[in-house]
Amino acid sequence: MKKRIKLIIGYDGTNYCGWQVQKNGIAVEAVINEKLSRLLGEDIIIIGASRTDSGVHALANVAVFDTETKIPPEKISYALNTLLPEDITIQKSEEVFPDFHPRYTNSLKTYEYKILNRKFDMPTLRLYTHFIYYDLDARTMSQAAEFLIGEHDFKSFCSLRGQALTTIRTIHELQVTKSGDIISIRITGNGFLYNMVRIIVGTLIKVGLGVYPPEHVKEILDKKDRNFAGPKAPAKGLTLIKIDYQNTLDTHGYV
Amino acid sequence: MKKRIKLIIGYDGTNYCGWQVQKNGIAVEAVINEKLSRLLGEDIIIIGASRTDSGVHALANVAVFDTETKIPPEKISYALNTLLPEDITIQKSEEVFPDFHPRYTNSLKTYEYKILNRKFDMPTLRLYTHFIYYDLDARTMSQAAEFLIGEHDFKSFCSLRGQALTTIRTIHELQVTKSGDIISIRITGNGFLYNMVRIIVGTLIKVGLGVYPPEHVKEILDKKDRNFAGPKAPAKGLTLIKIDYQNTLDTHGYV
Repeated sequence: MKKRIKLIIGYDGTNYCGWQVQKNGIAVEAVINEKLSRLLGEDIIIIGASRTDSGVHALANVAVFDTETKIPPEKISYALNTLLPEDITIQKSEEVFPDFHPRYTNSLKTYEYKILNRKFDMPTLRLYTHFIYYDLDARTMSQAAEFLIGEHDFKSFCSLRGQALTTIRTIHELQVTKSGDIISIRITGNGFLYNMVRIIVGTLIKVGLGVYPPEHVKEILDKKDRNFAGPKAPAKGLTLIKIDYQNTLDTHGYV
Repeated sequence: MKKRIKLIIGYDGTNYCGWQVQKNGIAVEAVINEKLSRLLGEDIIIIGASRTDSGVHALANVAVFDTETKIPPEKISYALNTLLPEDITIQKSEEVFPDFHPRYTNSLKTYEYKILNRKFDMPTLRLYTHFIYYDLDARTMSQAAEFLIGEHDFKSFCSLRGQALTTIRTIHELQVTKSGDIISIRITGNGFLYNMVRIIVGTLIKVGLGVYPPEHVKEILDKKDRNFAGPKAPAKGLTLIKIDYQNTLDTHGYV
């Protein structure tokens, strides 16, 4: 009898073309499909929750697959990790109800974007932060972020390539904090448009640099036109932190 | 006229055979020598403060060289960074007195060792932390650390390859702290024997695992025999944080 297994997956996106199979490069899901198929002796195709871009990292992306294996569900993580490269690690494996779908089940996704704001880049942080030389004002960035919280039409904040039926989304939390020379932007929502987090970050950076006053972000929202928002911030500063599925008791994440 | 220039250097040690030129692999100092010679049109050989091992990182190693260049000392950092690979970055360049020697001037070096203590390794931290599956008790590790603070003969805590004239050293600070699932061991001293920090960490890990009681560390010190201490902890968890030169007004570091 087939069981549905849920995986929680951490990965360093540096060396991948992203979660999803693309024309060029190696996809995170392709590596997992191959190793899982070899481990279980079945043709496995996983379905992921967040299709992160090339260079974006994840502490806890979620994926499911169906299998007839007799390996206990919670042991699959350990067995699979022995086959996976060290930049992809299964954090947890467990059986879920057969109707659980990681994209069509209500969830809250939390992403964090890290900016290193100092005079010289720091090699040990270069793969996980976006280095900015010019002083950013985290206070005005935080004020600007307030305008984006709640339900809005985020048409100005998504790449044209996106195929969403509606560009209305709800941001539950959006916090800008500064610790030493690292500015962290943490965003939680029930769904994000294509490149939405990176365009929000790129816009907040323009506020932090003093190019836009904080309240200009509200005008950008009202324009409903991608041309008015800031540029897409580089992928490497972005990490998927956790995905909380609603109507279940457990939190699937590494905080 | 020759000037002596001091560099503060951050690097990711992952892809290097260490600071110093070895038989195999690329050394951090060799890369800087080559790029600096090209930039200045002179044969430059830098002298480094800490000869970090392969895989060890630095936020602020210190090196000096002599040059006849007309480039303003504080501009050399920017010019050199345009030539260096992204895993080596000059943090600062400045002129110093001609008798300043980074190894023979009294200094306090601070290293930090990071352990990731959880059930699964996390890919985004894998290059900068040492992953340990079994639960570590940071409290007993901290108690054990107390016995090492002060002036002691650290013969039990150095690799036999070391060529130091005396194995007496002073540890000024040694703190074990826990934040989430990361245990940090921060150590400050006026000098360290070959592999001393990594052997201290390896010994504290044995205490944290419950293999040694904290007070056993005092017995290991008294034995003055490398065989009684714990194993050398892996290089990748170790980072040189800063070097403070005494009898000068400035602190050379990134904290």
